[in-house]
Amino acid sequence: MNDDPLVIFTPSGRRGRVAPGTTVLQAARKLGVDLDSVCGGRGICSKCQVAPAVGAFPKHGVTTGPEALSEWNKVEARYEEKRGLKPGRRLGCQARILADALIDVPPESQVHKQVVRKDAAQRLIDMDPAVRLYLVEVDEADMHEPRGDLQRLQEALRMAWGVENASMPLPVLTRLQGVLRKGSGQITCLVHQGASGATPSILDIWPGYAEPRLLGLAVDLGSTTIAGHLCDLVTGEVVASAGVMNPQIRFGEDLMSRVSYSMMNETGAAEMTASVRDALEVLAAEIAGEAGAQASEIVETVFVCNPVMHHLLLGIDPVELGQAPFALATSDATHLPAGALVAGLHPQAQAYILPCIAGHVGADAAAVALSEEPGAQERLTLIVDVGTNAEILLGDTSRVLACSSPTGPAFEGAQISSGQRAAPGAIERIRIDPETKEPRFRVIGSEVWSDEPGFSEDAGAITGICGSGIIEAVAEMRMAGIVDSAGLIGSPEQTGTPRCVPEGRTHSYVIHDGRENGGPLISVTQGDIRAIQLAKSALYAGARLLMDEMGVDRVERVVLAGAFGAHISPKHAMVLGMIPDVALNDVTSAGNAAGTGARIALLNKAARRQVEAQVRQITKVETAIEPRFQEHFVAANAMPHAVDPFPLLRAEVPLPDVSYNTRGSGEDGGGGRRRRRRT
Amino acid sequence: MNDDPLVIFTPSGRRGRVAPGTTVLQAARKLGVDLDSVCGGRGICSKCQVAPAVGAFPKHGVTTGPEALSEWNKVEARYEEKRGLKPGRRLGCQARILADALIDVPPESQVHKQVVRKDAAQRLIDMDPAVRLYLVEVDEADMHEPRGDLQRLQEALRMAWGVENASMPLPVLTRLQGVLRKGSGQITCLVHQGASGATPSILDIWPGYAEPRLLGLAVDLGSTTIAGHLCDLVTGEVVASAGVMNPQIRFGEDLMSRVSYSMMNETGAAEMTASVRDALEVLAAEIAGEAGAQASEIVETVFVCNPVMHHLLLGIDPVELGQAPFALATSDATHLPAGALVAGLHPQAQAYILPCIAGHVGADAAAVALSEEPGAQERLTLIVDVGTNAEILLGDTSRVLACSSPTGPAFEGAQISSGQRAAPGAIERIRIDPETKEPRFRVIGSEVWSDEPGFSEDAGAITGICGSGIIEAVAEMRMAGIVDSAGLIGSPEQTGTPRCVPEGRTHSYVIHDGRENGGPLISVTQGDIRAIQLAKSALYAGARLLMDEMGVDRVERVVLAGAFGAHISPKHAMVLGMIPDVALNDVTSAGNAAGTGARIALLNKAARRQVEAQVRQITKVETAIEPRFQEHFVAANAMPHAVDPFPLLRAEVPLPDVSYNTRGSGEDGGGGRRRRRRT
Repeated sequence: MNDDPLVIFTPSGRRGRVAPGTTVLQAARKLGVDLDSVCGGRGICSKCQVAPAVGAFPKHGVTTGPEALSEWNKVEARYEEKRGLKPGRRLGCQARILADALIDVPPESQVHKQVVRKDAAQRLIDMDPAVRLYLVEVDEADMHEPRGDLQRLQEALRMAWGVENASMPLPVLTRLQGVLRKGSGQITCLVHQGASGATPSILDIWPGYAEPRLLGLAVDLGSTTIAGHLCDLVTGEVVASAGVMNPQIRFGEDLMSRVSYSMMNETGAAEMTASVRDALEVLAAEIAGEAGAQASEIVETVFVCNPVMHHLLLGIDPVELGQAPFALATSDATHLPAGALVAGLHPQAQAYILPCIAGHVGADAAAVALSEEPGAQERLTLIVDVGTNAEILLGDTSRVLACSSPTGPAFEGAQISSGQRAAPGAIERIRIDPETKEPRFRVIGSEVWSDEPGFSEDAGAITGICGSGIIEAVAEMRMAGIVDSAGLIGSPEQTGTPRCVPEGRTHSYVIHDGRENGGPLISVTQGDIRAIQLAKSALYAGARLLMDEMGVDRVERVVLAGAFGAHISPKHAMVLGMIPDVALNDVTSAGNAAGTGARIALLNKAARRQVEAQVRQITKVETAIEPRFQEHFVAANAMPHAVDPFPLLRAEVPLPDVSYNTRGSGEDGGGGRRRRRRT
Repeated sequence: MNDDPLVIFTPSGRRGRVAPGTTVLQAARKLGVDLDSVCGGRGICSKCQVAPAVGAFPKHGVTTGPEALSEWNKVEARYEEKRGLKPGRRLGCQARILADALIDVPPESQVHKQVVRKDAAQRLIDMDPAVRLYLVEVDEADMHEPRGDLQRLQEALRMAWGVENASMPLPVLTRLQGVLRKGSGQITCLVHQGASGATPSILDIWPGYAEPRLLGLAVDLGSTTIAGHLCDLVTGEVVASAGVMNPQIRFGEDLMSRVSYSMMNETGAAEMTASVRDALEVLAAEIAGEAGAQASEIVETVFVCNPVMHHLLLGIDPVELGQAPFALATSDATHLPAGALVAGLHPQAQAYILPCIAGHVGADAAAVALSEEPGAQERLTLIVDVGTNAEILLGDTSRVLACSSPTGPAFEGAQISSGQRAAPGAIERIRIDPETKEPRFRVIGSEVWSDEPGFSEDAGAITGICGSGIIEAVAEMRMAGIVDSAGLIGSPEQTGTPRCVPEGRTHSYVIHDGRENGGPLISVTQGDIRAIQLAKSALYAGARLLMDEMGVDRVERVVLAGAFGAHISPKHAMVLGMIPDVALNDVTSAGNAAGTGARIALLNKAARRQVEAQVRQITKVETAIEPRFQEHFVAANAMPHAVDPFPLLRAEVPLPDVSYNTRGSGEDGGGGRRRRRRT
C-alpha cells in the first residue's frame, strides 16, 4: 500500500514511513523522536548524530542493509575530516533515508536525555533545562520590508524552532547588529523559557555557530551551610560541588535568633541579606573555578531554602515569620534576574526559587517533596530532613502533609559540650560495650576504630564529637544502660563504670581523655543529653502531629534526608526516639534530598511546574500553634518514648529498663538498679 | 412585566432595570457604564460621584423624583462632612436606586474621560493610561491556608478588579508586608498594564487609601531639541511643558554627522547615549519642578524620536543607519523600565517607545501618524513634519505611504549666514514691498513690526534670522523679484535696489544693518538661498516620490507638522516650493504632531496597539536609494519648481518671471531684466 521506506528509531521504538530522501533529522521530527539539533540541520553542530543498524531485526520486524541511508555527502565528509565522528555514526541532518532503516539515537543526541542521580542511583532526571541554544539564519535587512534585526531574528526563531515572541533584554539588543554582521546573518541564541506563561527571553548571542559552556547552579541555602552543585546544562552532569558556611551564623545560630536580630536592629535584615549574597558570590566563583570555568558562564540558578533564608535572600525582612500567623511575604515560586541575588554570574542569568509550603515549611521542604515524591509512595512514608530546623513530610498516594519543627542545632553538634561540626578530628561513630561500658569510636579522617591497630592518638587528632557522633553516643549509652529512659546518666556506682564521673549534682560519661597528650577531655554531659532530648522530642512531636492529622499511629517507611541525614544510623536514631517505630530496613537515607530537588528543578523545567502543583496539594500543619504539639513533645522526652511502645525496635536492640531517678525516693547510692514500669 | 426601577445613565444613554436597592456603582457596572472607582465602593475615594436628575425627561421616556435614590447614609454623610461634595452630587457606591432614576456621570467620574488637546482642539483623547490605582482589602494571613501576602493581594486584585496575574518587582515586594500591616490589610496599588500579552505589574503600594500624584512624561526627542510634556495621568491634563537643546549637537548638527561621529570614534555612540540620557534627567527634573512635583512622581514615560535618536537613546550604535540597507536593530515598539533610560524617575517607572516605520522613518513619524491619522482622511493628505530631517506621510483611507528626507538644518536657521535658533532677537516674520524692495520685519520678543511706532533698534535687539524668518525672507524676495526662479539674487542694477550688494561674484540682500549701533549686518546671501533650495528640494522630492508611488500628481490637503511647522506661513512655504500646489486654505498646521502622538500614547494604551498596527500597514519608501529622488530633487531646485506649474499658487500670489542668469549670455550689466520661459 505504501512503498515509502519504513524507519524505526531506538530506543524510543517510534516508527513510520517517510518519503525516500527524507533526512534522518526530518524523519525524527515527523515521528516525534527526541533527536537534538542546535544548528538546525546545517551539518555544523553534530548534535543529531545517529547510529544506523544493519541486519535482520525480527523484534522490530525489519531487515536493513547498508543502502538504507544515502552515501556520505560533502557536508558530512567535511565534518568527519575536521572534527571526526565515532565509527558507525552519521549526521542525522545529512544522511537521507532511502530504504527501510533502523536508527539508534545515542543518549548524547537526545535533548531530553536522562541523567543518573549521583547520590540516589535509582532515580533519573530528564534533561529539559530552561535554557537552550538555537542556531538560526536571519534574513538580510531589506529596505522595502524594513523590519528591525530583532524582528527578523524573532521570525527566524519562530520558523526554525517554534520559539514564539522571544524578547531580548536591552544589553543584548545593543550587541545584536554587530553579532549578526560578524556571523553573516548566522547567530547562536541562548533562549530562556523558564516561567510558564512568560515569553522566552534571549539571554545571549554569538556570531555564527557557537558552543558556549552553559552552566547552572543549584543552591541549597541552609541556616548553617550553603551547598552548591554546578551542573552542565547540556549533559546534566554535576561538574563541581562546594559548600560554604552561612555567614549569617554570626547574627544567630538558629532561624529564630536571626529573626530576633532583625527585630532588634533596624538594619539587621539588610545586613543579613548582604552577608548571604556575598557568600553566594564567593561560592559561585569558587565552584566555577573548581570546574575550570568562570562564574560568568553560569546562566541559570535555582535556590531552595527555608522561609527565613528565603526572605533574607530576597531582601525581605523576616520579622513576620517570627510570630503567628507566620505570614510569608510571598509563597509562590519566584522567577527573577539572578543578578538581583548574586553578583558575578552571566549578566542575564536567571534565578528560580522553589515555592514555600508555609511560614515554617520552606522551599527546601518543597525540594525534598520534588526529590522524594511522598505523594507517589504506595506505603505511608515519613520523610524527615534533619538540620537546624527539621522539615517533616508524611504521605502516600492519598495525601501529603508537611510541617517543620524547631530542633535547634544540637543534632549538628552545636550546644553540645564537646560538640563540633563534622570535620577531621570529630568523633562520628561510637560503640559502647554493654558489659564493660567501654567505648570505641572512629574519627573523621581516620579509617580505623580506636581499638584497632594503627589508631593514632596524637595530640589534636581527636577534637570533639560531631552531630552523628553525639546521636550514636547517647543511643549507645542508652543501650548500655549508662543513661536511663528519662535521660539521666547514672553514677559510677549505678552504672559500674568509672567513666561516669560526677559533675555537680549530675554525671558525665567520659568517651576519651586526651589531656595527657595535650588534647581535650571528650565526654557526654547531662546537659548534652538534655539538649539531644529537646531536639529529638521536637522532631518526634512534629512527626506525631502529622500522624494525628493523617489519622494513623504508625508509618510504614522512614526516609532520612538532609546532608546530615545521610550519616545518621537508623538504629541509633530510633533508640533515641527521633523517628517512629518501623522495621530498621524500612529506614533509608535520601542524602541531600533538598539539594537534589534543586538540581532536578535546574535541569528540568517541567519539574518546576510539578513542584508548584505539589505544594498546592500539601496539607500544612503548623506545629507552633497546635496544642497537641506540646503534649507530644513532653511524651517524646523519654528515650525512645514515654508512651509509644516501639515494639519493632525492641525486637532488635536491648533497651535496659534502668532508672537513675533518685528524687522522691531518697539518695539511691550503692549501685542498686531500680526497675520501673512504664506507665 | 418587570417592576424593577429603570435607570438611565447620561451622557452614555445606557439604560436598564436593576433590583431595588442596587447601588448606582453596581448598576453602572452591570450596564457597562464608565463610572470610576478606586476604593472599590468603600465611600473613600469619591471617584464615583454622580448627579441624579429630578423631573420629567420625555427624551429618555422617564420621570424621576427625589425618592429615586436612597437617603444619605452614614458613609456618604461622613464624606460630605470631611471633604465636601458639590451640590447635587451623590457617591455612586453609597446611593441606592429605589425608583426610576436618571443619573449623570460627570466627566471627572469617568475613567475613560476625554481630554481636549490643547494645540488642536478638534481632537479628544480618551483617558486609558497604562497605570491605574486600585484599593483592595487583602485577607488576613491564615496559618491553615498559608499563602503569602503577595498571593492574597493578587487574589484580591483579581476578585475586586479583574486584574489577573499581577506581578510585583522585588523592590516593591520587600516593602509589601510593612505596607499591609500599616494599612490593616487595606492597600492602594499602582498597577501597570502596558504591553499587550504582558502580565500586569504592581509598580508601587501605599497603606490604606492613597491618592498619590501620578505623572506621565511624553518626550519628543528631536535631533536639535528635546521637548517634554508632563501629564497628570488621572485627569489627562498637561501640567507642564519644557524643552531643552539636544546636547548631542556638539557631536554633529544633523543625524548623519552623528552617525559619522560614531563610526570614527570607538566610544562615540556611548558618549552620545550618555549625553542624551543626562539631558533627559535634567529635563525630567525641570519639568517636574515646574509642576511643583518631584521627578520621582513620574511613573510612566513615552518617547518618540527618529531612528538615529531611537538607537542612541537605547544605547545602540546607529552605524547601520548610516548606510544601505539602513537596518534598524529593532523596529517594533519597545517596553522597558524607564530607569534604563532616565535617572531620577519613580524607581519602577516604565517606558514605552513607539515603533519605527523604517530605517529613515522613525517613531516620531509613527507618532505623527497616530496624531494626524492619514489613513482616516477622506481627502488625500500630505503631512510633512519639518525639522532637521523631514518626515513625510501621504495617505487617505485607501493607503498610507511614508518616507523621510534629509533636509538638513537650514530650515531651523542653521547653516544660514545670519541664521539663529528661534529665540528673542531673531527675525521671524518679514515682508518686502514689491515696488520699493524695502523690507519690514518682526522680531521674536517684540509685538510690533519694524516700520511701526515703538519698534526698538537698541544694540543687540536684532540678532539674526530664525528658520521661519529665512523661509519668509526668501519667499518675499522671490515675490518681489529680488531673486529669480533659479535662486539667483539680482544685482542692484537688475533689481533696482541698493539693498542688493555685491559679494564676490554674487549678491546679498540686506535686511537690516545694525552696525552703526554695534549690532550685526543681517542679510540673505546667495549661499543662504542655495542652502534653502537644497533643503526645500529634498522635502519636495520626498513628497513627489510618495505621490509617484501613490500614482497621483496632486494632493488635496497639506498638513505642516513639527514645532517648526506651526510657524511656517503656508503661502511662503509654497512660494519656495517646499510643498506641492494646493489651495492655500487646504494647508493647515498640526502643531507638534509628534509630541501630540507621544501624549496620546501616554494617556491611552489602546492607542499604542493602534499605532503598532498602523505602522505595519504603512508602505515605506526609501528616498536614499530611489533613482527618481535625484530627478525630483533637481527639478525642485527652482522656486517654486522647474516643471510643476503650481497654478493654484500663481492664482493667489505674484511670481515675477525674472532671470538673473548671466552665464552663456555675457555679462548682463546695466539693469536689464531678461525674460525667460520655463521649459
